[in-house]
Amino acid sequence: MTWEILNIIGTMAFAISGVIVALEEKYDLFGVYLLGFTTAFGGGIIRNVLLGLPVSDVWNQNMLFTVAFLTMTLMFFIPFHWVLSWKRWGVFFDAIGLASFAIQGALFAAAAGYPLSAIIIAGVLTGTGGGIIRDILAGRKPLVLHQEIYAVWAVLGALTIGIGIAGETWQHLLLVVVIVLLRMLSVTRHWKLPGRVDWFILLRKVKN
Amino acid sequence: MTWEILNIIGTMAFAISGVIVALEEKYDLFGVYLLGFTTAFGGGIIRNVLLGLPVSDVWNQNMLFTVAFLTMTLMFFIPFHWVLSWKRWGVFFDAIGLASFAIQGALFAAAAGYPLSAIIIAGVLTGTGGGIIRDILAGRKPLVLHQEIYAVWAVLGALTIGIGIAGETWQHLLLVVVIVLLRMLSVTRHWKLPGRVDWFILLRKVKN
Amino acid sequence: MTWEILNIIGTMAFAISGVIVALEEKYDLFGVYLLGFTTAFGGGIIRNVLLGLPVSDVWNQNMLFTVAFLTMTLMFFIPFHWVLSWKRWGVFFDAIGLASFAIQGALFAAAAGYPLSAIIIAGVLTGTGGGIIRDILAGRKPLVLHQEIYAVWAVLGALTIGIGIAGETWQHLLLVVVIVLLRMLSVTRHWKLPGRVDWFILLRKVKN
Repeated sequence: MTWEILNIIGTMAFAISGVIVALEEKYDLFGVYLLGFTTAFGGGIIRNVLLGLPVSDVWNQNMLFTVAFLTMTLMFFIPFHWVLSWKRWGVFFDAIGLASFAIQGALFAAAAGYPLSAIIIAGVLTGTGGGIIRDILAGRKPLVLHQEIYAVWAVLGALTIGIGIAGETWQHLLLVVVIVLLRMLSVTRHWKLPGRVDWFILLRKVKN
Repeated sequence: MTWEILNIIGTMAFAISGVIVALEEKYDLFGVYLLGFTTAFGGGIIRNVLLGLPVSDVWNQNMLFTVAFLTMTLMFFIPFHWVLSWKRWGVFFDAIGLASFAIQGALFAAAAGYPLSAIIIAGVLTGTGGGIIRDILAGRKPLVLHQEIYAVWAVLGALTIGIGIAGETWQHLLLVVVIVLLRMLSVTRHWKLPGRVDWFILLRKVKN
Repeated sequence: MTWEILNIIGTMAFAISGVIVALEEKYDLFGVYLLGFTTAFGGGIIRNVLLGLPVSDVWNQNMLFTVAFLTMTLMFFIPFHWVLSWKRWGVFFDAIGLASFAIQGALFAAAAGYPLSAIIIAGVLTGTGGGIIRDILAGRKPLVLHQEIYAVWAVLGALTIGIGIAGETWQHLLLVVVIVLLRMLSVTRHWKLPGRVDWFILLRKVKN
């Protein structure tokens, strides 16, 4: 039940982020739906393809499909300044999507008996794969590869599942809360992963 | 038999569109073949992956492979003004490819017992998926997301199959003709799907 | 044993090429790992998806995963002029990766009983698929479609396997050596596949 609510929030947030990118690229109505759907369901599809799990499972999420479809249709018609104000709130709901999709993706792989490496990749891709396809379809460099820390929190969640220290449902949900918090802190504090440049600056500081 | 002829026309048209994009991007002979093949067969591959159907089926289309290969080789060597004049005729043959691939993709999913949502996505992706990969491999924004109405006719065809009002072969072929007509009308009349901007212009008109 | 050494060299070279592209695009640490992993393992994954072979096999290459991970971590921290000097050596190691991955990909498809067309595509994609995904994730046009001859040597190797004139291990390894040589010659002599323009220049020369 809790997972269902989290999934609905995550699906809506991901679909909306797809819609916003499509509108920014001046894509038409079809582009809006395509980017919305791929952002919302692309992560799960990539995960199932990579883990060799039946992709057809995706087609049994009728409720989530309907939620995504209605959300996108709504987004296409509401006044534009609502869309803008969404962009602030959106980060929060998107964080919920990231966290709950990543944890469930990791649990999915763990339940199928995969090794730790596959569990981590399943968590990361379920959480971020949709956004990566969205950006590629929009002709952009994937945001997740160069914005504030995003994917690493999915790695962290999946790692926690993978090493088996969080086995019960309340622990999984706690993990979701922690990831949402860390993601929100990354945005508000502008935490970024180090790139090469930062590394060299650090090195020089240590030397002096 | 009729399907076979339609498939040959569609495969040739899609392969040629891949060749033209590769030539425009100044890709070499390998790029020409890669873009041609992915445009012609990419849609069917994506569909099979997404529906969990055996992708290896694709490798049994020996005749279509040969057709695509010969077409591309020819395109690489014919005088350039023939290629240009193709661009006009190309839209027509491409429409035949779109229509016949979409209808067969939808029939494929329907025969495998999938729900309506999957049938529509199967139809759309079989018809447009190859072109989307072609554009991504060429570093372009997928044409189908912002040009004259294209994918929607595939949606329409798949929907007609999905709700079960066209069950016999002559009806399927009629549907192909209708989709080709609608696609050609979209091009000659510059029909476009509404984007956000159009929507607001319409809204203002209604208000006044 | 020999394959294992070749695979380690190839995996390292491909992972490093992913790291370099990610650094050039100013991607962060996550981007570095993602591009490194997709370059090293993406080709094998695409091949398995396209041939309908279990993708989960990829997850049993624990040793290669570890090698790739350590290589990438090292690359992120070593002085930059070492990275630059790598770019020269890199072409050589990359050629080893191309050759050994392509031959093994073709052998894989041949052992699974696929027809010649599928064997060639398996060879090409195992050798070049990772680099194609790397470039798309970096928002670039795939290098393999327009640089010095690269993919064609993979085609050649796969063709040799496919028509069955190289059946024993020493012949496969000889084939690897031949492909590495041809690739290195392509780079040092700037061999390129003909594009349309070259074709017309050639045509004019023949006429005069």
